[in-house]
Parts: sequence; C-alpha cells; structure tokens
Amino acid sequence: MVISTIGRRIRLGLIGGGPGSIIGETHRIAARLDGQYDIVAAALSSNPERARQAALDLGIDGERAYASWQQMLEAEAARADRIDAVAVMTPNDSHHAICMLALDLGFHVICDKPLANDLAQAREIAARAKAADAEFCVTYCYTGFPMVRQARDMVRAGALGEIRQVHLQYVQSYLAPHDLPAGWRTEAGRAGSSLVLMDIGTHAFHLGAFVTGLDVASLCADVGSAIPGRAVDDYVSALLRYENGARGSLWVTNAAAGSEHGLSFRIHGDKGGLEWHQEEPNRLIHRRQDAFEEIITRRLGPSTSEGAQRSTRIAIGHPEGYLEAFANLYTEFAQRVAGRIGGKPGDDRPTLFPGVSDGVKGLAFVAASVKSMATGGWQDVERA
Amino acid sequence: MVISTIGRRIRLGLIGGGPGSIIGETHRIAARLDGQYDIVAAALSSNPERARQAALDLGIDGERAYASWQQMLEAEAARADRIDAVAVMTPNDSHHAICMLALDLGFHVICDKPLANDLAQAREIAARAKAADAEFCVTYCYTGFPMVRQARDMVRAGALGEIRQVHLQYVQSYLAPHDLPAGWRTEAGRAGSSLVLMDIGTHAFHLGAFVTGLDVASLCADVGSAIPGRAVDDYVSALLRYENGARGSLWVTNAAAGSEHGLSFRIHGDKGGLEWHQEEPNRLIHRRQDAFEEIITRRLGPSTSEGAQRSTRIAIGHPEGYLEAFANLYTEFAQRVAGRIGGKPGDDRPTLFPGVSDGVKGLAFVAASVKSMATGGWQDVERA
Amino acid sequence: MVISTIGRRIRLGLIGGGPGSIIGETHRIAARLDGQYDIVAAALSSNPERARQAALDLGIDGERAYASWQQMLEAEAARADRIDAVAVMTPNDSHHAICMLALDLGFHVICDKPLANDLAQAREIAARAKAADAEFCVTYCYTGFPMVRQARDMVRAGALGEIRQVHLQYVQSYLAPHDLPAGWRTEAGRAGSSLVLMDIGTHAFHLGAFVTGLDVASLCADVGSAIPGRAVDDYVSALLRYENGARGSLWVTNAAAGSEHGLSFRIHGDKGGLEWHQEEPNRLIHRRQDAFEEIITRRLGPSTSEGAQRSTRIAIGHPEGYLEAFANLYTEFAQRVAGRIGGKPGDDRPTLFPGVSDGVKGLAFVAASVKSMATGGWQDVERA
Amino acid sequence: MVISTIGRRIRLGLIGGGPGSIIGETHRIAARLDGQYDIVAAALSSNPERARQAALDLGIDGERAYASWQQMLEAEAARADRIDAVAVMTPNDSHHAICMLALDLGFHVICDKPLANDLAQAREIAARAKAADAEFCVTYCYTGFPMVRQARDMVRAGALGEIRQVHLQYVQSYLAPHDLPAGWRTEAGRAGSSLVLMDIGTHAFHLGAFVTGLDVASLCADVGSAIPGRAVDDYVSALLRYENGARGSLWVTNAAAGSEHGLSFRIHGDKGGLEWHQEEPNRLIHRRQDAFEEIITRRLGPSTSEGAQRSTRIAIGHPEGYLEAFANLYTEFAQRVAGRIGGKPGDDRPTLFPGVSDGVKGLAFVAASVKSMATGGWQDVERA
Repeated sequence: MVISTIGRRIRLGLIGGGPGSIIGETHRIAARLDGQYDIVAAALSSNPERARQAALDLGIDGERAYASWQQMLEAEAARADRIDAVAVMTPNDSHHAICMLALDLGFHVICDKPLANDLAQAREIAARAKAADAEFCVTYCYTGFPMVRQARDMVRAGALGEIRQVHLQYVQSYLAPHDLPAGWRTEAGRAGSSLVLMDIGTHAFHLGAFVTGLDVASLCADVGSAIPGRAVDDYVSALLRYENGARGSLWVTNAAAGSEHGLSFRIHGDKGGLEWHQEEPNRLIHRRQDAFEEIITRRLGPSTSEGAQRSTRIAIGHPEGYLEAFANLYTEFAQRVAGRIGGKPGDDRPTLFPGVSDGVKGLAFVAASVKSMATGGWQDVERA
Repeated sequence: MVISTIGRRIRLGLIGGGPGSIIGETHRIAARLDGQYDIVAAALSSNPERARQAALDLGIDGERAYASWQQMLEAEAARADRIDAVAVMTPNDSHHAICMLALDLGFHVICDKPLANDLAQAREIAARAKAADAEFCVTYCYTGFPMVRQARDMVRAGALGEIRQVHLQYVQSYLAPHDLPAGWRTEAGRAGSSLVLMDIGTHAFHLGAFVTGLDVASLCADVGSAIPGRAVDDYVSALLRYENGARGSLWVTNAAAGSEHGLSFRIHGDKGGLEWHQEEPNRLIHRRQDAFEEIITRRLGPSTSEGAQRSTRIAIGHPEGYLEAFANLYTEFAQRVAGRIGGKPGDDRPTLFPGVSDGVKGLAFVAASVKSMATGGWQDVERA
Repeated sequence: MVISTIGRRIRLGLIGGGPGSIIGETHRIAARLDGQYDIVAAALSSNPERARQAALDLGIDGERAYASWQQMLEAEAARADRIDAVAVMTPNDSHHAICMLALDLGFHVICDKPLANDLAQAREIAARAKAADAEFCVTYCYTGFPMVRQARDMVRAGALGEIRQVHLQYVQSYLAPHDLPAGWRTEAGRAGSSLVLMDIGTHAFHLGAFVTGLDVASLCADVGSAIPGRAVDDYVSALLRYENGARGSLWVTNAAAGSEHGLSFRIHGDKGGLEWHQEEPNRLIHRRQDAFEEIITRRLGPSTSEGAQRSTRIAIGHPEGYLEAFANLYTEFAQRVAGRIGGKPGDDRPTLFPGVSDGVKGLAFVAASVKSMATGGWQDVERA
Repeated sequence: MVISTIGRRIRLGLIGGGPGSIIGETHRIAARLDGQYDIVAAALSSNPERARQAALDLGIDGERAYASWQQMLEAEAARADRIDAVAVMTPNDSHHAICMLALDLGFHVICDKPLANDLAQAREIAARAKAADAEFCVTYCYTGFPMVRQARDMVRAGALGEIRQVHLQYVQSYLAPHDLPAGWRTEAGRAGSSLVLMDIGTHAFHLGAFVTGLDVASLCADVGSAIPGRAVDDYVSALLRYENGARGSLWVTNAAAGSEHGLSFRIHGDKGGLEWHQEEPNRLIHRRQDAFEEIITRRLGPSTSEGAQRSTRIAIGHPEGYLEAFANLYTEFAQRVAGRIGGKPGDDRPTLFPGVSDGVKGLAFVAASVKSMATGGWQDVERA
C-alpha cells in the first residue's frame, strides 16, 4: 500500500536492539512483516564496533552501519535519501535524549515503552513532537491485537453499555527467582522509579485506557517487592477510579513463580463484559446479561469490527500472535508517514497506534502509584 | 460409616430453607447425598402454616413438622429421640438468636454463612459454642471441593514454597440489573452492614485463608456500588497484607453484567502457583517455576492429597460439583457428631469443615473493609 | 414431588453393587439425592454373608437384608409393603436372569448398561418388559446431564438444521497398563462378546442417538486391542451412516495411556454444530455458521431448554456433575413409577430416561461391530 | 544467518498468489519475516497484465515483473543474478508443469501442497527433483509450529513409549453453505480427484506421519459429500493402520457448519498421549499415565526440544501463530539453499521442512482413499 502511494517503502533507521536483544528482533520482524519498510540504517549498540558489525550482519550497507545513534541521526539528516523515521529500542534512560534529537532533525519516531524515565521527560518529548509536527508511536504493542481492537470498537459502539468495572492483570515470573538477572533493568535508576511499574505496569494501564476509552482519575496502590529483601519493585496492586466513576483494579507483577505472560483484561458495563488473555489472543470472551456467552474470533461469517479487520492478515482460524500485533503498529505508522511524504493521508481512518500522549499518561500512572505508596492512600493521576 | 459407628444415622432438624429457597434444597441434598442423616424435624418458614406444610411435603412426620424454630428447638430438646443437630439457613439477621438457643439446648449446629450480622454477634456465638462444647460448622461450602483441599494440602506440604501473592475473585451478576430483586438481602439491615461483603465477600476471603493457612493482617478496601444510585453495596476491591508479609488483592462483586459465578483464587509462592475456578472445579492449575504447568485432577494414577481423596466419591474423570462439595461439609460434620455420640471420634483426621472461628473471621473482614472505606486507607483486621 | 402425589417415597430394592463397588455407591447416591426413594431392601453380593452384612451397614432392616437376589425378589413379592422397583447393578452376564424374574414378579426395573450379554437376551427382556407393562430404565447415565438434554432439545427444535455429521469419542485409560486388572470384566465371556464395545462403546453409541434422535443404519468398524497380545478388546473405531444419510465416526477405547474419561460428542447440521465433553459437562459449545460461537450454560438470564431446566437443581454457575446426571434418571423414573402407583402420571412431559429399547439398540450396535470386524466391511445395524 | 554465510539474502521468484490470494500473501510474509530472502522476481497471475502490475505493486523491478511463469523461469535462468529458488502457489493442476521446468532449469523449489494433481505426477516430480539434486519443500505448513515439532521430538525420544493410537481431525466450514464458492477448487478436475482429500486431507494425513514418524500401511475410508447433491467431496472419515500396527482414525471435512479451522491431533503410546489444536498452537497437552497432565509451552524455565527451540522467535508467553509456522519452513529452506550456494551446509541439524517424498505420500493417501471408497473396504497405501 505504501508503495502504491509514494512509489517506495518507508526508509527506517534502527537505534538499539543489537545482538541478543529480544525486543530488537521483535521490532525488525514487525518492520519486515508487511513489506512496508526498508531498514536502511542502524545504530544497534552503545558499543561502536558491535553496533557496526551487527548492522552489517543485518545486510545494511556499510556506510549506513553507524557506530552511534548521534552519528546516525546527524549523518542521515544530511542525506538526500535520508531515512523517514527512526525506531528507538534502547534502555529507558536514553529515550529522552534520542527522541529529542530525532524530532529536532525532522524524523518521525517509533519509541519503545515507557516513553521516558519520568513524567517531566515524557512531557518534554510530547511538546517537542507537537512542535515538530511529527508522527510518533509508543509501542504499547498489545493494543495491536485484533481482538483488543475489537474490544475497543465494541465498547465505543455501546455493546457493553456504560463501563462500570475494569480489572487488569499482568502476571509474569522472570523476577521470581531470588537472584535478580543482570541487565540495565535492575541497575539503579536505569529503569526509572519503579521497575514493575515502568516495565509492565504501563502496558496493563494503557490497555485498560485503550479498550475503555477512559482515563484513570485516581488510584490507591500497593507497590513493592514480593520477594523479601530485594531493592527493585516487582509487585503492584492498585485500586482505580476512572473518570466516569467506574471502579477498577490492577494486579501486575514480574515475580509470580511459574507464570508465563498473564496480561489480561476483564471489563464490565451495564449490559455485559469482555475478557481477553494475551496468551490466547484470538479469542475475545463476550459475556452478555441477556444472552449466552459468545466467543468472538477473527472468522469469516459474522463480522468483526473495522479495527479488528484492518489488523487481521489471515482469518478462518489461523492464529496470529504477538509479532503480528507488533507489526500492526508498524504498518499503520508506515501508512501515516507515507501520507506525510505523499502530501495526503495514506489512510483517513482513525489512528489506532498509541501516540506520544499515551506515553505521557503511562509516566503519570507511575508517578501517582509511587506517590500513593508513599502516602498510603488515594492519589489523583495527572493528566497528559 | 456413621451407621457402623453408632448404629443409626444422625438425626437432623432444619431451620429455614422452605419452598422456593435454593439454599434450602442445597442443604437438604447435602444431608441426603451420603446417607449419613435422617432429616426428622423441620421449621422451614417464618410463616407457621407454610412451615408445617413444607415439612410434611418433605415426608417429615406431622408431630415434628414445626411451626417455628423456637417451637422445634424446645420440643426436640424434650424428646428421647431428640435431634442431634440443627442446620440453620435463615436470613442473616436471625442466625444469632437461633444459634444461641440451639447451643443452649445442647444441639450441634450447622449454620449458613455469614455466621451473624456483625462481629459482636459472631463473637458471642463463638463463645457460646465453646462453652457448650458443641460441633459447629459454618458452610463456607466452596472449601468442600476436592481440588480446593488439594490446594490447601499442597501449600501445607510446601509445594509452592513460602506464599508471596494471593489474588481472589468472586464476580457474579445477579445484581447487575438496575432494579434490585426483592428479598431480605436488599432490605435495610437484614444482610448486615454491606451486602456484597456479607453475601459473597466472606466466601472469597475465607477461601484465601483456607488454602494458604494464613490470615489477613490488614487491608485497604474500595467498597460501594458499581451501579450508580443504589443503596446496597455490590462491589468491593481490596488490597491485602497477610500475616506472613504476603501481598494480596480481591475483586468481589454481584453486579458484573453477564458473569455467572466467577469464584476463583490464584496463589503464588516461591516455587510456583495454583489457580482454581469454581465453575470448573475438578481442575487445579499448578504452575511451576522449574517445570511445565500441570493440571491436577481427581484421577486414578498419580496421587492427590489426603484431603482431596477423602472428598472424592468417584474419580476417573467423572465430574463432581457444588452439591458434592456442600455434602462434604455435611458428611464430615456427621462423622464428628457420631464421634461425640459414640464416645470416640468417628475420624481422627484433622477436621476440614470451617468452624465457628472461621465465621468470626469473616465478620472481622467485613468490619475492617467498612472501616477502611470510611477512612480511605489501610485498616488492621481484628483477630477471631 | 413423589410424596405429594402418593403420600410416600418409592420403595427400592438393590441388586448388586456391594462393598467396594463404585457403580453400587453411584446408584445409591442417585437414589438418595432428590429424596424420592426409600432404599428398603437389598441383595448386594453373590456371597450370601457379604450380601447381608453390606445391607445392614447401609441401615437396611435385618429382615430385608437378603442373601441373594432370588430370595429378595420372591420375599418382596409376598410382602404387603413390597418394593416398587429393583435396581440391577450386577455383572453383565446376570442381567438377563434377574430382569426376567423381576418383571415376572411385577417389579419396575432400573438396569445398568449394557442391558444384557447379547442381542437375543436383550430382545427377550424387552419383550417381557412390554408384556409386564413395566417401567424400565437402562442407565446410559450420561444422557442425564442438563447440557446433553439441551443439545437434544436444540436438535429437535431445528437449531442445527438437518444433521449431517456426527463424531463420538470415549477415550479412557484404565486398560492402558499391559497387565489387565482382575475382575469379571476381563474374565472370558462375562462382559459379552467385546469388552470395549459392551463397557463404554454402548454409552458413546447411545449418546449419539439420544442427541440426534437418529439411529445408525450401517457401520464399518475396526475392533481389537491397542495393546498387543491381549485377549480382550480395548479399541474400536467405526465409520457410521445414520438413517437420514448423515455420516459419522466413533473412537472408543479403554487403553489410551494418560487419558481420564474423554466421553464427548461433536455434531454438525446445516446451520451449526454442538460439542460437549463429559469432563466439563456444564458447557455446551454451540458453533454457528452465521454468528459467533456461543457457550450454553445452566444460567439465569437466557433460557435453556425444557429438558435442561428439569435436569438442573442449582444454576448461576454452580457446577453439577456425574452423580446429579445419574440422579436425574432415578428421579424421573420415580415420578413415572409414582404415576403408576397413583393411577395417573406424575408427569406428563416426555420421558427422557433411556428405556429398554435403547438397551436393545446398544446390543445391536455391538453385534454389527463384531460382524463388521469379521468381514472387513460395512454391516447393517439391526433395529430394536 | 544466511547473510553471514553467503554475504547476501536468498533471491526468490514467486509463481502465483496474485491480488486477492490469501495463500500468496502468506508465502510472501513467510519469506519476509526472518529477513532471509529478497523477493526479486514474480509471475503472479495467469493473466499477463495482472501478473505484471501485481509484481510492480510489490516493489519488484519492472524487468523482473513477468507476464507468465514460463517467461520468468527462462529469463531468470539466463541472468547472472538469477533467482536461487522459486515458490509455487498456483492451482494444483499446474504444479507438475511448473515444478518440472523449474527443476530442469536448476532452481530450488518451494511448492504449495498438494504436490501435484495425482500420484503419477507427484512421482515424476520427485524423480526429477532427485535427478536435479535440488532442495524441495512442500508447504505442509502446520509442521512448522513449535509445539508440533516438540511433539515429534518427544515421540522420537520415547516420551510416549510405542505409539498405539492416532486420531486426526481437520474440521472446517467454508463449504458448509449449500452454494459452492466459485474458484478453481470447485471446477471439475482442477483440484484433483477429491477436493477434501487434496485440499485439507493431505495436511491432516501428513501431520500424523510427521509427529509419529510412522507411515500408514492401509486404510478404509468413507469419502463423499456431507451436503446432499453436491458434485465435490467435502467429507472423509477413515480408519487407519500404521506400519507398526498402531491403529488410527481421521475426520476431515470442509463442510461442518460453524467450525473454524479445527486441525488437531491426539496420539497415544504406551506411556501417555499428546494432543494439539492448531487454533491454540502454543499449548501441547501431554497426558501421562503415571503423572498429572502437563501443558507444554514455549517458556523459559523447563526445556522444550531442539525442534521447538529452533522454531521459536520469542517465548515467555508471547504467542506465535500460523505465519510464523509458515515462515519456519521458509527460513530453514533458505538455510539449506545457502548451504548449497556456499558449498557447505548452513545448518547440520536434521531438516524439518517437508520434502518432495512427503508430497508423494500425500497423493498416495488420496489414491488409496478414493480406491477404498470405491471398493467399500480396506486398501493398502502405496509407498513413496
């Protein structure tokens, strides 16, 4: 689609995600999957030599296999065939500097979540993105699943009635062993004020907002460590009040021994409820007060919503997964960027990928949770 | 078993649970299922005529078809073939008076939950039961499921390691319609201080304690109504701290449109976790940090725990359900009573049915939750 | 209900099912559960002493604790308070003699499946039952589940359109170990011509007929042993043609290592399909060609069928299981017998429990399967 | 990996799969996903103009956007930068001609299933591939799922003991409506002798062989139409005998109203069994005779097999689906081709993608099934 609009693919530069990085390969697959991008430049590591070699191993031309992100952004800004966009998948504490420069130099940006290391940084990035009139995607990737978008569309269409109750979970186990794994996440300060909140709490929080279309007004959180004697937070449970008066709760941890992924939502309105689990992403459970439960899938006969359909490549019971969800963000972003390049929108449907203001809201959630824990009571969540 | 011990069945008198009462038929099935009881007396309604007719319809002899519970307790106390025990399934606000008199007259007691209408009443009953040296069962019936007992036994045997996280849910829908159903539950004061807490919150709370063997030390609760403008509470979500430092949370509501039963627990310790859902009660999910997830069932080959085995009538994949779980409480209670009658215990295994102190703890949970809601912060839970 | 019709419970005598018998306790629980029977007589074992002692242990009066079934049937026939019905749960090879005498002496009969040891015997029993104008139930117990009856009602109401495809499974493991268990089932001739066909094949076969309302016209079967060198059959797979032209298949085995119960059906018609698994009996999967899949349960809001409703004791998500399904046959049988005693039907709704002709059809299935295996091709199934 | 071995990506030419083709986009995503291929040439339609335009829309250079497959194969054979391999996704009746010419011209081949329109054609292709010493992949794509490969590895490692029972299903609904969809599949002869056998029967059949490592020696099949009056086959059920004496059965249909995909296997050996459903592909159910059921997933802690690990991109509970499974075939094929180009194997592990002899076996299954239906009895399956 991008090719038929502007005659070429979107040119993408990668920052971070070098050898051994799971999130790096995830971003690259997401960029390749629908054939909307050419990955033509990269600065894949903070180590200059590893950065260049890794880029060559990906098949990138030698002159665009950069030693650092600063070098890449400046060199690309000067090229006639300069990249259109950068994708940022470095540790959290570098997002701010990278995004600010990329925006200054006129690039569109895909940035991994969380947007920045604190709320103030996040707000600066948002202001700069607005000033630069750039396309900006924060990869809250779970919103790319067709059934999550189906849920959002159903809520908007009133299928549940007024939203009354929201329950969010993200229950992982990678911090369940007593010995913390090495890496930047567990180094002091590099993952922001609270590991669990920054790392996966923001995913669960955004998922609730994405599906319901509602922001959280206030919350009361219990944040800390499930494993005694540990310096990093691995547990948060919170009571939530949404802006419309709906009540909610959230249980997020990286330290539940034996768990795998465990991201899920369960939302109830006046007429019924929806439940979704990331580990079985192609089934959306629709509980109805006046009819039997139905299982919504990406099938042929009955219609799924517009948002689900545009996020589906192949139906009739062939499962799509996490990589396709991630690619849905990338592909829609490519279409938006192509619209900018071609002087007209590639797509006049509402944008579904999370934007920079969603990134700011994630940091506001983190800040309110930390404050609630300190005071032992309810705290308002600041608006983006 | 009771017959071979004392040469006859336990003689049971029923209080409450007349025509149209679901819980009444549940208690009666539980008493009949294993053939341990003769139901020989009843006061089934607060309406004298309906009480007598309903008893006759059950096949009870005319002279023991009583017009009121007071009449029944006094008349039975005077008989040579007096009943051994009473089963109380009246509205909450009458439990205290009935139990106190029954204990005074020397009967053993099975009382539906919650034990009483407030914590003070509950403590009085507990003190009287102790003074009377009576057998006393509070029908937190979900503890009768074999897989719940399996979970408890696994926790005690250390299969999960130290307990770190507890999450409890009970998500029903019978109060989801805006118009409240008629009945004593929704009449002011008759269901105690908070409908949702008394009605189903105590079940979820006890389930967590039963399986973990831990009490909640403090909590922070959000109690109220999910349906605006309603006088009764239909929603509670709470943050929990257990006595060993474990963290927990709880989501309980009668007003989640489209839900059915939704009682579940998910508990994680150092080594793994257990998850159970009442709607599929014969499967216990055991997540293990160092092995694949296993599904524990009441099957032939591998061994379930002693608690699961004594709660199972038929294995090899034949499902048992709610009525069998309820009957497990009744049958074990019969064995205890037979032990009293025969002068020796019918069973020297630890008692698994919930006792009067569990009933007191339920009311302490209600009291702490109501207080937390009033103050907006954490509250200690009083000990039984 | 029986009491209000005829002023007393149905008087039942038991034959077989003594100490250690799982099926014996199952029949007794089924008789007790709804309070429709008094178990007043029993001949529980082929060993006279064990028979009498076991009856006493059940609380049966000494004079009706019989040493043999012949003794019981004759003595009861002479009593003024004679039993109304007998329940037969002896090994297959004794069903014919017991049923014939019971019918001759004017008793109504509940007989465990299979009805007899071969088709000729089964036809004799059926003829005698007709001549005696007796109520007769064959305990194909899985037809007692509410969701099985819901499926039958949906098919009859046309919810699936014309039935086109039927697939039946019953996949157990108790014969998976190489060493056969001791007992009458594995003694030559006592379980009829083929263990797997008689023991569980007839259950699966009847289930298909019960739900679809269709008989199998012809079949092609592969019968034998999955475990090499074994004298008894533990495996059958068959191709089926129903009388309306629908195609079907069946996989039944007692020797699939690691399985539990595994009885299921999946049936498709012009408009959709139904799938049910005995191990999760309270969920009926309804696949629809023009709508999303729905999960039918015994819930409050939407209506289940008449057959499901009359088979349900407690809804709102409280699971009922195998024992309740078994009890549904007993309770309906009691109502029919009460109708005979009282001179008018206790219930004018269609009978749902399997009758003597269903028992005959089961043996016709066995005969056709054995013949198909011998010839290596298709065989007609004889009609009842 | 291919780049680091031979310094460039594999050059791929596409035949078929033009606009509107689901399978075409599936092949292209599979080629793009891991970045192992450059798609540099295409003949996407039998209509010359559509063929060229579709190639341009994919971003292929004008001179390699071919009007026909003959033109492409001949032109590419003459280029210095000729394609290394072709991917064939045309209707079944053209596979033979295309594959024969491609092999003659020295290209490696990826061919969609079934390999050809009949067994004789398939054998000719196999002989030609052997003569050409070409890499050849037949896209029985479901073998690319990590949990399918896990199952195969477990069987080989003896985890189930000797294989005793196999049950295969593929239950779709796209032919459930009475009006057949237009397209080559329903045109006489174009899909081979039997639509259901060629279209999806071969998938199920190969899946059984892939996992068990066993071929079917003989079978007895019921092939026809579930929908009366239809000219094409939409139903097959078969009894199977494997070469080791194991028994099996198969139920495959495109006409089960309301179904989605429904491909599954359930396999039992002496020690336990495995069950897998394509619609939930990341869970492998392992039933064990001497332990509880376990659920095998692509998780971090316990080890999956080598075959599962090499087929997994991202674990810890992030689902991968059909497109990743398809890509696993493509990526392994690329590594094999790179080994040929580089003069040494890119990978010395056993090949997992299905080869040309698997394609031949699929047509032998079709032939035996059709013959069995004609004779009404058992037929041997010819060897590849």
